Amino acid sequence: MPKIVDHEQRRREIVHALWQVIAMHGLEGVSLREVAQAAEVSIGRIQHYFDSREALVLAGLERLIAQAGAAYDATAGAAPRDRLLHVLVQQVPRSELGRIGVTVWYAYLATAVTDHRIRQVLAEALRRGEAECAAHVAALRGVDDARAGAAARRLLALSDGLTLRVLVEELDPDDAIDILRAEVDGESRTRRGVSR
Amino acid sequence: MPKIVDHEQRRREIVHALWQVIAMHGLEGVSLREVAQAAEVSIGRIQHYFDSREALVLAGLERLIAQAGAAYDATAGAAPRDRLLHVLVQQVPRSELGRIGVTVWYAYLATAVTDHRIRQVLAEALRRGEAECAAHVAALRGVDDARAGAAARRLLALSDGLTLRVLVEELDPDDAIDILRAEVDGESRTRRGVSR
Repeated sequence: MPKIVDHEQRRREIVHALWQVIAMHGLEGVSLREVAQAAEVSIGRIQHYFDSREALVLAGLERLIAQAGAAYDATAGAAPRDRLLHVLVQQVPRSELGRIGVTVWYAYLATAVTDHRIRQVLAEALRRGEAECAAHVAALRGVDDARAGAAARRLLALSDGLTLRVLVEELDPDDAIDILRAEVDGESRTRRGVSR
Repeated sequence: MPKIVDHEQRRREIVHALWQVIAMHGLEGVSLREVAQAAEVSIGRIQHYFDSREALVLAGLERLIAQAGAAYDATAGAAPRDRLLHVLVQQVPRSELGRIGVTVWYAYLATAVTDHRIRQVLAEALRRGEAECAAHVAALRGVDDARAGAAARRLLALSDGLTLRVLVEELDPDDAIDILRAEVDGESRTRRGVSR
């Protein structure tokens, strides 16, 4: 009987090794050799799954985004307020693993400035996140699309800035989450008071 | 007559070359050789001014912070509202040079996660910026130190998040500045209405 190979698992392991390398050495430090070493597989194995270094790097970003998307989809039954808060809070690192994830995300952001393809994928992910948040803001506050979009963008930018402060240990993760929660609840109360 | 050497100018030129290298290849791409090439000087010249790669990299961060500090000090005579807005808006890139500056800043931020010394220098700069902003918020809104500090942190985090969106071309710099201006003016109006 032929050995059953779980290709999805192998791809996942390679991408996790890629993230490790990025977190340690930045995106510029990524080579197939480094990733093979971190994944404890041969370079040939990596090439079997990814055509090139560029393809692997891009797959790493797409999986990062897909993972965040899956965590968000799992909140499908929750209230708009909770789903909104989920998106705002999910990137705030509360563990070493969380720190690695955000560090990798920032490495991609830094690269986006000079890499057109990565910029496209990132911008698309940011736009989708904003659209989701805007829908929840609209449901919560009963405002029109333009206002909801502006509020969502503001909330997400605030979350990005707070995350950055947690990352350099200038802010405690719990404090960042408290600020975001107050922002969502405080504002939704205020607007409700005005609009209803 | 001996040739007069402008040491400060030479140091500055080397640091500018360092920033170029960081913007192009990230902090991991920095070597004395790369910087020497970008500055069109010898490696020996760089070593004359900077003891090591690490010393040069740190000097690059300190100069980045000092430059922002000098631009802020130049607003000394302005109103609290304008000085606050200056700090919030100054990092939003409105030119190619501005983009390079912010890219370098983000490269240092990414490195701060693993580099203790850089994290210290960055955290200290963030704290100072926050204290300055808090003083202006306190003057504008007549709130106590704790509230002013929280508001300043929130405004700066928002500015960071918006800057990031401008950097990946997901947001227009003018829109980012409009959002920050509305935040400063809108909020100061509201609080004034309540507190006076």
